[in-house]
Amino acid sequence: MDADYGIARELSDLQQLRTLYKPQLPPCLQGTEVRVEFGDATTAADPSGAHTIKKSFPHTYGQRLAHFLRATAKVADAQIITDQPAVRVGVVFCGRQSPGGHNVIWGLYEALKVHNPKSVLLGFLGGSEGLFAQKTLEISDEILATYKNQGGYDLLGRTKDQIRTTEQVNAALNACTTLKLDALVIIGGVTSNTDAARLAETFAERNCSTKVVGIPVTLNGDLKNHFVETNVGFDTICKVNSQLISNVCTDALSAEKYYYFIRLMGRKASQVALECTLQSHPNMVILAEEVDASKLTLSDITKQLCDAVQARAEQDKYHGVVLLPEGLIESIPEVYSLLQEIHGLLRKGVFADNISGQLSPWASALFEFLPPFIKNQLLLHPESDDSAQLSQIETEKLLAHLVEKEMNKRLIFCSLDTRIFLQEEGTYKGKKFNAICHFFGYQARGSLPSKFDCDYAYVLGHIGYHIIAAGLNGYMATVNNLKNPVNKWRCGAAPITAMMTVRRYGQPALYPATVDLRGKAYDLLRQNAAKFLMDDVYRNPGPLQFEGPGADARPVTLCVEDQDYMGRIKELQEYLEKVRAIVKPGCSQDIVKAALSAMASVTDILSLMTSPSSS
Amino acid sequence: MDADYGIARELSDLQQLRTLYKPQLPPCLQGTEVRVEFGDATTAADPSGAHTIKKSFPHTYGQRLAHFLRATAKVADAQIITDQPAVRVGVVFCGRQSPGGHNVIWGLYEALKVHNPKSVLLGFLGGSEGLFAQKTLEISDEILATYKNQGGYDLLGRTKDQIRTTEQVNAALNACTTLKLDALVIIGGVTSNTDAARLAETFAERNCSTKVVGIPVTLNGDLKNHFVETNVGFDTICKVNSQLISNVCTDALSAEKYYYFIRLMGRKASQVALECTLQSHPNMVILAEEVDASKLTLSDITKQLCDAVQARAEQDKYHGVVLLPEGLIESIPEVYSLLQEIHGLLRKGVFADNISGQLSPWASALFEFLPPFIKNQLLLHPESDDSAQLSQIETEKLLAHLVEKEMNKRLIFCSLDTRIFLQEEGTYKGKKFNAICHFFGYQARGSLPSKFDCDYAYVLGHIGYHIIAAGLNGYMATVNNLKNPVNKWRCGAAPITAMMTVRRYGQPALYPATVDLRGKAYDLLRQNAAKFLMDDVYRNPGPLQFEGPGADARPVTLCVEDQDYMGRIKELQEYLEKVRAIVKPGCSQDIVKAALSAMASVTDILSLMTSPSSS
Repeated sequence: MDADYGIARELSDLQQLRTLYKPQLPPCLQGTEVRVEFGDATTAADPSGAHTIKKSFPHTYGQRLAHFLRATAKVADAQIITDQPAVRVGVVFCGRQSPGGHNVIWGLYEALKVHNPKSVLLGFLGGSEGLFAQKTLEISDEILATYKNQGGYDLLGRTKDQIRTTEQVNAALNACTTLKLDALVIIGGVTSNTDAARLAETFAERNCSTKVVGIPVTLNGDLKNHFVETNVGFDTICKVNSQLISNVCTDALSAEKYYYFIRLMGRKASQVALECTLQSHPNMVILAEEVDASKLTLSDITKQLCDAVQARAEQDKYHGVVLLPEGLIESIPEVYSLLQEIHGLLRKGVFADNISGQLSPWASALFEFLPPFIKNQLLLHPESDDSAQLSQIETEKLLAHLVEKEMNKRLIFCSLDTRIFLQEEGTYKGKKFNAICHFFGYQARGSLPSKFDCDYAYVLGHIGYHIIAAGLNGYMATVNNLKNPVNKWRCGAAPITAMMTVRRYGQPALYPATVDLRGKAYDLLRQNAAKFLMDDVYRNPGPLQFEGPGADARPVTLCVEDQDYMGRIKELQEYLEKVRAIVKPGCSQDIVKAALSAMASVTDILSLMTSPSSS
Repeated sequence: MDADYGIARELSDLQQLRTLYKPQLPPCLQGTEVRVEFGDATTAADPSGAHTIKKSFPHTYGQRLAHFLRATAKVADAQIITDQPAVRVGVVFCGRQSPGGHNVIWGLYEALKVHNPKSVLLGFLGGSEGLFAQKTLEISDEILATYKNQGGYDLLGRTKDQIRTTEQVNAALNACTTLKLDALVIIGGVTSNTDAARLAETFAERNCSTKVVGIPVTLNGDLKNHFVETNVGFDTICKVNSQLISNVCTDALSAEKYYYFIRLMGRKASQVALECTLQSHPNMVILAEEVDASKLTLSDITKQLCDAVQARAEQDKYHGVVLLPEGLIESIPEVYSLLQEIHGLLRKGVFADNISGQLSPWASALFEFLPPFIKNQLLLHPESDDSAQLSQIETEKLLAHLVEKEMNKRLIFCSLDTRIFLQEEGTYKGKKFNAICHFFGYQARGSLPSKFDCDYAYVLGHIGYHIIAAGLNGYMATVNNLKNPVNKWRCGAAPITAMMTVRRYGQPALYPATVDLRGKAYDLLRQNAAKFLMDDVYRNPGPLQFEGPGADARPVTLCVEDQDYMGRIKELQEYLEKVRAIVKPGCSQDIVKAALSAMASVTDILSLMTSPSSS
């Protein structure tokens, strides 16, 4: 199969047109000179974990933020990098493919060659396995020709993609040393970027000169923090899924006899489900984060769905569309406990067939209550991040099954035994509930990337080069202000360690960012939930377009949220500079007193806010 | 729910842009005057059934073809319809929604109003049920505004949609009489157009003045015959599905560890599966028609798939994409027999739970061999056309299950009992086979229609009006030369009875046109099958576009086939006219002799070819 990597291939007319699209660069990355301005040393967002992170990452913790500026920008102490020696860089795809991945390689390649044509970019074939085995393909214009702005990871391929065990880390170090790499760029999500940070630390510790750079590419959209606003691929995935969801909504409204239960790929966090809801306005969505926050049981969720079906039936509506994130199943408390028991037994080597007999009485009762297809899916081995195989567990079918059972009960119940008479039984007078189930994931992952993802990935690739040129290790490329046009984008780099948190008993790591139930995007959903549920205000963004209306649309969740953290950090720095400039020795006593008093007060407030007890 | 029909709704930017698109009309339908030229009286394609059809349809069988021409066209005996009285027309959606349906209503409405602003178009609400109950919505510019070039059937809705029983036919007749309709336009596929033909005959027989017109709209693409080249919706469905299939192909090639088994909606015929294969080049497709023609058993198909997996593994390829039409399951001989037994028992009122005990020993053996999920799906009640509930039977999961079992056998078999040693066992040395299953149907049905479907539907709507103006009953609107640009399209109308065939014990009806295994489209597939299977020449047509490359692409199967039957019929007529013009009384004896000899020979050949024994 290796011989097939990077080969030119026949493209459709539309694909050919897309290869001609050249993403724009923000002003700060144009030309051959770029300034780097270093900000303050970073800390971890979670102050209580800072100590642990620092201990685990003595060489790479606390490094300063980096901002990339135009060469003409008037910033006093910015450093212009003019010496651009030829470098050898390796790049590897890690984890689930995400639309736009190829453009990171293109951007990185372009930046390398613009600054020194003698620089070399080696792609590792077949993900981390290719890295360990030192299987490479030298990237060239010819090779890139049919992969520009195209979906998939098939230029290089990927595998299971962990760089975690001592053996794996040693193999990676060995590859970087043997191939004389100045830098290794890792393209991936939370897990791969955690691996990147650990690798950077190990390389530093062992005096390996290869710098490690991370690029945030994941369709889940869950690599989100102060520094990272969204991920490459998320926009495309949400647009393709929203197209399909809204087609299904139109279908529901035309046939008026089905409830569609649609599960969406996206791992633990419900970012994809939330964004798709805001784009296509289905009747309902149940976010894993809501279930988790309210500790909703399987029976609570079923009741909630049945109440919705019943309320709609009272308005003579027998159709609807319900979105379910794939992470939902793990967020249900009793299912989570059951999964923990199952995974524990599997890890002990118990065969799947023998597990049901070894469960605790309570877990066993739940297990026996579930329909057979779900039982088999729950018995699958957990993934490398210890979560269940979410893409294989048909939560949509489970809930459709439970809702159908419950609706039939509400419909026909006429028991004489009033002792077991429940409130809802016999209250439903409508037509039979019919569900059709879908899982949307694989059919979106290979899509042609949206214009936004093409641009974002290409720019991140360029930033990757500038991080290398600045000699930084353990950084992730960042772009801020993404909801604005490309010429307003702010480019930078942040140490990956600054994005880490520490969980009980856990190593410091990047964790999937779950939907913030106090955030503006969720608030928008809450405000519209009743209307979505009852009024069928379905919205059809249509198929992904590359020109005309909608072609430049950004994710709703990106636009409503007030991010630009890096911009604010810079602005604050400017204020501090101004204070320093005004309060120079020689200025009046009054000015010094005023400054002192104001600064003392600011310092007090901030100390209070960041003391561990208040968090 | 009725109150929600036809309401204006909020559209996305792209939807709004699409409402502004105005389909072109072919030259023959431009202006306010149109000529109708009547061709020869029609016969049925199946000469042996002609007698039966004539007996069933005494009033509407054998009517002449109609061609619509420009008012300025120089055709001697064409009739210009200048008197355009106001008419009252009803229109109803029947059967599965198909992208483009709304444009038929728009085209019909426009043509009605252009020729007489006093004409009225009534839409029946909720399909045939709305017809029977006389629930109508008067179509207006305001109502159409947000439905132009939009998907779904939600302007009017649809229901189960049969107009077949005496009670249903009487209700339809009653509605047409009470509402004083000059015509009823039925939008649908093979079943609905068969109903239309029967209704036309009944109306004629009972002296009801309402004319019945059929419009070929079905995503299955199986209403195909000499007169009808393709159906509204087929192009969109194939484009949307091909997008998803090719995304999955890209995914397969990136991850290199999964086989995707994808079932496609399309009823008995495999038209959708064939078209999607030619658009996206997956590794394999198994057409129901191939299985039917070669009488392949479940075990044959499993073996064929396993051999493909094994051949690919020998080239170190552990991924692939296989398409399966939903009609495949019924085409497998032993499964068909089993389904016949089950449906027979269900019709006798046997409960699903008791059926397995009452099957013949042979059917019972097959039934017990199948995995439980498929058993339940096979036990579902048959559809109104007596076929199984194809959309509910997960053939893709069944085959994935059987292939996995067989591959595991080939992989690890090391039995000591050589008596049961089969040829393939123990021959597979590759990695474990992993399948992911999909059903693509509902997520495409509600799509925004492609430009072609928008145009085709709009033109058919116009033709619907001209059929009414010409006073024709039991006709279907037809457009020929569809693979060429709209200005080359030829418009006409053909009696629905001319498209009927008679099956043993059956009533004359339109039957789904299956893939012609001797046709050019299938030949194209055959020529490429080996390359598709082994070389991963996946092609990604990309998401449906409305401008630029691919926006005007026509279905491959439409383009490779050499259709234009109506054009040839017209050309032949012109030859006959020429002979008549040359051989006028007074011409030389030699010319008469030459003409006589040539015509006698033509007549002999054609008589021989159309005699029942040769067919």
